[in-house]
Amino acid sequence: MKVGFIGLGRMGAGMAVNLVKAGHELLVFNRTPEKSRALAAQGATVADSVAAACRADAVVTMLADDQALEQVAFGKGGILESLPAQALHICSSTVSVACSEQLTERHAAAGQRFVSAPVFGRPEVAAAGQLFVVAAGEQRAIDAAMPVLEAIGQRTFVVSPIPKIANLVKLSGNFLIASVLESLGEALALVEKGGVDPHAYIELLTSTLFNVPLYKNYGALLAEGKFQPAGFAAPLGYKDIRLVLAAADELRVPLPFASVLRDRLLALLARGGEALDWSAIGGLAAADAGIERG
Amino acid sequence: MKVGFIGLGRMGAGMAVNLVKAGHELLVFNRTPEKSRALAAQGATVADSVAAACRADAVVTMLADDQALEQVAFGKGGILESLPAQALHICSSTVSVACSEQLTERHAAAGQRFVSAPVFGRPEVAAAGQLFVVAAGEQRAIDAAMPVLEAIGQRTFVVSPIPKIANLVKLSGNFLIASVLESLGEALALVEKGGVDPHAYIELLTSTLFNVPLYKNYGALLAEGKFQPAGFAAPLGYKDIRLVLAAADELRVPLPFASVLRDRLLALLARGGEALDWSAIGGLAAADAGIERG
Amino acid sequence: MKVGFIGLGRMGAGMAVNLVKAGHELLVFNRTPEKSRALAAQGATVADSVAAACRADAVVTMLADDQALEQVAFGKGGILESLPAQALHICSSTVSVACSEQLTERHAAAGQRFVSAPVFGRPEVAAAGQLFVVAAGEQRAIDAAMPVLEAIGQRTFVVSPIPKIANLVKLSGNFLIASVLESLGEALALVEKGGVDPHAYIELLTSTLFNVPLYKNYGALLAEGKFQPAGFAAPLGYKDIRLVLAAADELRVPLPFASVLRDRLLALLARGGEALDWSAIGGLAAADAGIERG
Amino acid sequence: MKVGFIGLGRMGAGMAVNLVKAGHELLVFNRTPEKSRALAAQGATVADSVAAACRADAVVTMLADDQALEQVAFGKGGILESLPAQALHICSSTVSVACSEQLTERHAAAGQRFVSAPVFGRPEVAAAGQLFVVAAGEQRAIDAAMPVLEAIGQRTFVVSPIPKIANLVKLSGNFLIASVLESLGEALALVEKGGVDPHAYIELLTSTLFNVPLYKNYGALLAEGKFQPAGFAAPLGYKDIRLVLAAADELRVPLPFASVLRDRLLALLARGGEALDWSAIGGLAAADAGIERG
Repeated sequence: MKVGFIGLGRMGAGMAVNLVKAGHELLVFNRTPEKSRALAAQGATVADSVAAACRADAVVTMLADDQALEQVAFGKGGILESLPAQALHICSSTVSVACSEQLTERHAAAGQRFVSAPVFGRPEVAAAGQLFVVAAGEQRAIDAAMPVLEAIGQRTFVVSPIPKIANLVKLSGNFLIASVLESLGEALALVEKGGVDPHAYIELLTSTLFNVPLYKNYGALLAEGKFQPAGFAAPLGYKDIRLVLAAADELRVPLPFASVLRDRLLALLARGGEALDWSAIGGLAAADAGIERG
Repeated sequence: MKVGFIGLGRMGAGMAVNLVKAGHELLVFNRTPEKSRALAAQGATVADSVAAACRADAVVTMLADDQALEQVAFGKGGILESLPAQALHICSSTVSVACSEQLTERHAAAGQRFVSAPVFGRPEVAAAGQLFVVAAGEQRAIDAAMPVLEAIGQRTFVVSPIPKIANLVKLSGNFLIASVLESLGEALALVEKGGVDPHAYIELLTSTLFNVPLYKNYGALLAEGKFQPAGFAAPLGYKDIRLVLAAADELRVPLPFASVLRDRLLALLARGGEALDWSAIGGLAAADAGIERG
Repeated sequence: MKVGFIGLGRMGAGMAVNLVKAGHELLVFNRTPEKSRALAAQGATVADSVAAACRADAVVTMLADDQALEQVAFGKGGILESLPAQALHICSSTVSVACSEQLTERHAAAGQRFVSAPVFGRPEVAAAGQLFVVAAGEQRAIDAAMPVLEAIGQRTFVVSPIPKIANLVKLSGNFLIASVLESLGEALALVEKGGVDPHAYIELLTSTLFNVPLYKNYGALLAEGKFQPAGFAAPLGYKDIRLVLAAADELRVPLPFASVLRDRLLALLARGGEALDWSAIGGLAAADAGIERG
Repeated sequence: MKVGFIGLGRMGAGMAVNLVKAGHELLVFNRTPEKSRALAAQGATVADSVAAACRADAVVTMLADDQALEQVAFGKGGILESLPAQALHICSSTVSVACSEQLTERHAAAGQRFVSAPVFGRPEVAAAGQLFVVAAGEQRAIDAAMPVLEAIGQRTFVVSPIPKIANLVKLSGNFLIASVLESLGEALALVEKGGVDPHAYIELLTSTLFNVPLYKNYGALLAEGKFQPAGFAAPLGYKDIRLVLAAADELRVPLPFASVLRDRLLALLARGGEALDWSAIGGLAAADAGIERG
């Protein structure tokens, strides 16, 4: 397939490489062109505009947030204007349910097809082509997107014919991860104040009930108390919890844990944590318990 | 070793069988004698009193709560009065930090040794001898207890020379499990109201980020919405969260997630959930969202 | 002064009458014209469009929410297009901080003046001209608005030269009221389950520490458990708490009580409370405690 | 009446003076005798032991907590042993519901009468004889206690024939006060970060909706941010919220606001606030919002 790719951040770059490796003809575009050049070295063609990247069977977007995506999609020379009829927009960004709904409507009106396909996994997983993909859209659009989705991930879960539901599921997953951070943070504060070594405690948990990379990786960060450099920065985590709560507003679902997480992330940002990894919310429990670290 | 065993409930019975299998000479005592007879068929000797079960190198207790343990330990003809000097009391019950502290002091005063060794695992895991054991106590007492601990579990974690710290760690683990229940309950309520099939959602989560039995087993219960019969009844779960909060009071550690869990469990009990599995707290999020199930 | 008045709901109608009584020449406009006729009988002139109501020294808006206000202000034939240069827009609606900011900017660009002046008080207080007015804006705009503000309220508090701050203060006040509802609801659930008569309890509270109409009026509603007809409907209360949280997002202020209130209001709406007074959130504590009422 | 009075702290001393003024024959006892001497100067007789203070028609206790009261009541030479049959124990301390229940049972067994009569008001209100008294007990015991209750308070509310219910009501009142502290603290953090002067804000609130001394006094403390010297110290406030939650445990009533308050008070104590007034919890919202004060 001829595939455009917009957004070569830490996640997007890894995904794009795997599309090239899978044999797709790739047109890459990034706001700052340096990143495109790195991809060119791997075999991609550099597009000099969003419109140029849209001269393809499908265009994949991997952008930071609603605002970035809306600009690229709806702006002058954007995807809506540039993508051929019947061509496919595969959106892998973690954006709001409302944004996904708007894309669905406007692509339909423009005679284009839209698949929402956010992913789970950190940059190194993206580079390895081992992401988990959560996809939603009309069956024929999903079918058409499959060669792309299979190239970027180890498995694709099709959750609904309505694209925005993929975003809801993705956001719910980030909520679950944040709940792990907070619960580990509280448990660590409790046992650490009781004299238990944090590393031994995490080792105990993650070799027994919680024997899974998510708990191991974040547990190690929390035990260490090192939240820099950020793998996933606090403002992004805050954005996601806000999007979870916005979806819950719309659907009218009270979420007490998500409310606690919102306040934790706000406190983290208000107290100077802009540059930290979002797992630093797990350190607030220790701070509130008067534990001095490092 | 000659080992007494007091408390042949669903967990204790499985543990006792494994002690017999490991070649220990076992004296079993249970308040209701039927359960002792089943163990006798497996090779244990039935003791007709707590005192009789204490004529051993070590006595293991596996009782429901502080009250049951205090009666057996401190009552007339109880462990304190009956256990030989230098013999060992290994307490595997999930009891309060305060109760464990009191046992430590009183056994020391009586010239006996005390190891706190609560376990992680459901009854079928106990029966398989595959529990995880969290042990704390003086090194020599731990060493002496090891043949017993190795017989009941697949691995023993020694967390502190102070027995009550094992209870703190065990309770923190139950808090983490309850946090999983609540977070899954909230996430399910959100996506289910958005139209996602709960079973497919749990399958997605547990074949990706949360690929671990704890999430799989409880996820299945939550997706099904079947909370009877109870594997671990709501009042026991509530007791454990109360003990977590009591330990946090003592150590002065604010725990916002644990506070939410306390309120959830109270609501469950107040609204008629006495006989349900504690994972039913995960169903309250759906109820609060106005989702009607089954 | 010649004053336009847009929005003759239960609050607006009372405010408009007091402007007539104070001797202002009043031009009234309402989407549904019946309400305008009632004002005409009191001496107001009926305007047949927003634009017509803007042929004045000042126009007051008292509308339900951001959306209604934005349509009237920014739509075709709206206030921005119609109000003379240097004339005054006094906005008394409870709208978002962001909406107020946008009005400030756009009125300034159009050479018009803007005062944000939300009010505290229920419809009967508005009818009596006894509202409390929270005003913010440039000093000269405030001065010009004062004859209007004095006619509708018993006292005006000028809180800032920046209009949106009046909205922030107003929203914070509604948050405080909602906190009273929740705290009373919890306290009532507790003592009622202990056997105390709810009416006697409210009488005790409100003749001692909480001897103030707010606690008396809402306390009576809560003790009675009658939440219909709604004085201030649950969806409006929910809107306000959302606006509080949106302002807190912007300013980065964690608000744990507001988070609880959000979840309570969501649960109320999700469980069928659309038509109830927002004080019905105070009844959820009783429901969660398993108390059956009326 | 001949009245014993045990516990001459800041509250007790003021209450005792009013009993003398009302013409009662007063026998005062305090653990540290200096305070008794001050009362002697006002006309009281100094008792040199609890037992001596019990040679009376009624004995009033005004002690810090359950532990102090239990020692005085149940210890050797304590009230249970010393009070004549049919004489009255009036307990005005803020103690637990469970403690009150125990006193009820043991006094009944000893043929003595018991009235629980906790009070609302700070020391200066006690000195002025203007407390509000919440009383519960058998009607004839209440009748007998009335001359004492009338001397210490401006009004007595009889809430139940079961003594412990007075404690429940008193504790619920302290929960409501703490809710005021937290809600004001959050509102202040929000508007202060928005640029509003805290003093002007409190003036606005307390001259409008919240025109009542409780909000005025605590609002002034919060706006000032001065939490020393403590009028009611943080550890006492924490104790009371714990007792509220203990009562809610017993009655199975989930209390989300009380849970937030518990965590706030724990954080205050853990972060070095032992010596502060409990209203300092209202300052934590500002701290979490990154607001630096004085």
